Amino acid sequence: MNSINKLFNIRYPIIQAGMVWASGWKLASAVSNSGGLGLIGAGSMYPDVLREHIQKCKRATKKPFGVNVPLLYPDVDLLMKVIIEENVPIIFTAAGNPKIWTKHLKNKNRIVVHVISSVKFALKAQESGVDAVVAEGFEAGGHNGREETTTMTLIPLVKKAIKIPLIAAGGIASGKSMFAAMALGANGVQVGSRFVASNEASSHLNFKNEVVRSQQGSTILTLKEITPVRMIKNPFYNKLKEIYDRGGSVDELKKMLGRGRAKKGMFEGDLLEGELEIGQVASQINKIISAESIIKEFIKDYNSVFEELKKIT
Amino acid sequence: MNSINKLFNIRYPIIQAGMVWASGWKLASAVSNSGGLGLIGAGSMYPDVLREHIQKCKRATKKPFGVNVPLLYPDVDLLMKVIIEENVPIIFTAAGNPKIWTKHLKNKNRIVVHVISSVKFALKAQESGVDAVVAEGFEAGGHNGREETTTMTLIPLVKKAIKIPLIAAGGIASGKSMFAAMALGANGVQVGSRFVASNEASSHLNFKNEVVRSQQGSTILTLKEITPVRMIKNPFYNKLKEIYDRGGSVDELKKMLGRGRAKKGMFEGDLLEGELEIGQVASQINKIISAESIIKEFIKDYNSVFEELKKIT
Repeated sequence: MNSINKLFNIRYPIIQAGMVWASGWKLASAVSNSGGLGLIGAGSMYPDVLREHIQKCKRATKKPFGVNVPLLYPDVDLLMKVIIEENVPIIFTAAGNPKIWTKHLKNKNRIVVHVISSVKFALKAQESGVDAVVAEGFEAGGHNGREETTTMTLIPLVKKAIKIPLIAAGGIASGKSMFAAMALGANGVQVGSRFVASNEASSHLNFKNEVVRSQQGSTILTLKEITPVRMIKNPFYNKLKEIYDRGGSVDELKKMLGRGRAKKGMFEGDLLEGELEIGQVASQINKIISAESIIKEFIKDYNSVFEELKKIT
Repeated sequence: MNSINKLFNIRYPIIQAGMVWASGWKLASAVSNSGGLGLIGAGSMYPDVLREHIQKCKRATKKPFGVNVPLLYPDVDLLMKVIIEENVPIIFTAAGNPKIWTKHLKNKNRIVVHVISSVKFALKAQESGVDAVVAEGFEAGGHNGREETTTMTLIPLVKKAIKIPLIAAGGIASGKSMFAAMALGANGVQVGSRFVASNEASSHLNFKNEVVRSQQGSTILTLKEITPVRMIKNPFYNKLKEIYDRGGSVDELKKMLGRGRAKKGMFEGDLLEGELEIGQVASQINKIISAESIIKEFIKDYNSVFEELKKIT
């Protein structure tokens, strides 16, 4: 049996990424009910809001689901308190050192997965006792690593270095790219962008439509001096670029970023002034559909590879 | 039958990239003799030198082989004259507009393939009458596109847009990544970096050893203001970076580049002062072996995916 299916007790080795302003209880429960693993993205939630989402998710599905927590957020301890009190069985951590929280969560018998973008941090995560890692390539949306290593290059490197199960992320929006990631050595995949353009995502419709409209070259990895993040090149990004072009300071960039830019773009649908985080693979997404249809299409396309490719003699 | 095998009349759909200072007649003929398609890289050759390599290659193999020509080079017409006179059956063109040369070469009944890094240029190449395109991702070594689209994202996009056969390049150094590329929709693969670290490559041994030593993060895509190129972050790159860091001009970059940096690094083995062009996937290459062994390993690893992955029910 696939190690990822076994670890999470799910039918398909497809994890829906925990994404700010996109993955609340609705999306997470829909994915879990369809045989994948749904994740609530705690990064955009106050502790009370997270609790509400967890409770609603429990009511909406009997299947396993999880929560994604960016470790660098200020109230991470309050979020973790909620997660433990609400008996969430699976926690994905990202953007920070997994050491302290992994131990704490493992003591509470939770399944812990950490998101990395390098071999070095994959090994650190394994050492800290996580059950699996997500290895995320350069093409992924939102926060990203500094090494700029693409999924194609990263997965075989991490696979060779670690012993625990490996989940691939970045550039995976179809069953064919899922197959590709698994041929490279991944045991399962984490899918973000494709689920943003789903009926159940809490993202604003304007943003979902923008994802559907985007083409090759619509996104860029920027803000490397602060935290690298991949976003759509919209008018807000152009303001950042203008600061770069005239050699502005990191402080100016931070000031332009300000607060609430991500919420404004992705949740409130302000395509001009908001920050729109999405992966390169948005260029392959042409329709807003249900989470269940996404999973079904993935499995169909995954299996179709067996019809198309034969052994080479 | 696979469309790439058929187009080139080769056993395996593996093309060895035509690379400056690496792929002369020795490497090209060894690859062709092993069932792939070997390419002589004309980019680093004077017309007379190219003629010599073609003639030696003909003597060394009865199998099809080709020549890669960067179209922006000053003496491209002289190189093409040699290619036509010597009856080279297959020509790969890159870095330039394929329109004029494709027509000329098709009139002489040659097979023409053009290298692109975007859907837009894939369509232009198809329109100009090429027989196939190579779609090259962000992770590839040497000259690269401006869109920064990774192989994982690029291949399905190009596949959907064009009707002619598609060859994937960038990030492919094993049979597993070859499988991944073909699951994404490619009909064959072009492999560069892996063949640099081969016995038959004309690259300097110092450079081959540097490829073997390189790890995640060893390369970077730089010189985006001139022509984006992926290279190893060696002391020569550090000098470029120093110009960037202090906000230096494009002229300063060009002056630092000067002439002969690529030859100095890759052919003469000066790891300090030379430019070392290689793909991200160098981090997966751990041994200098023969071209024949590379091809054999590719096929073995490709077929092993069928043992490891099963249909999902």
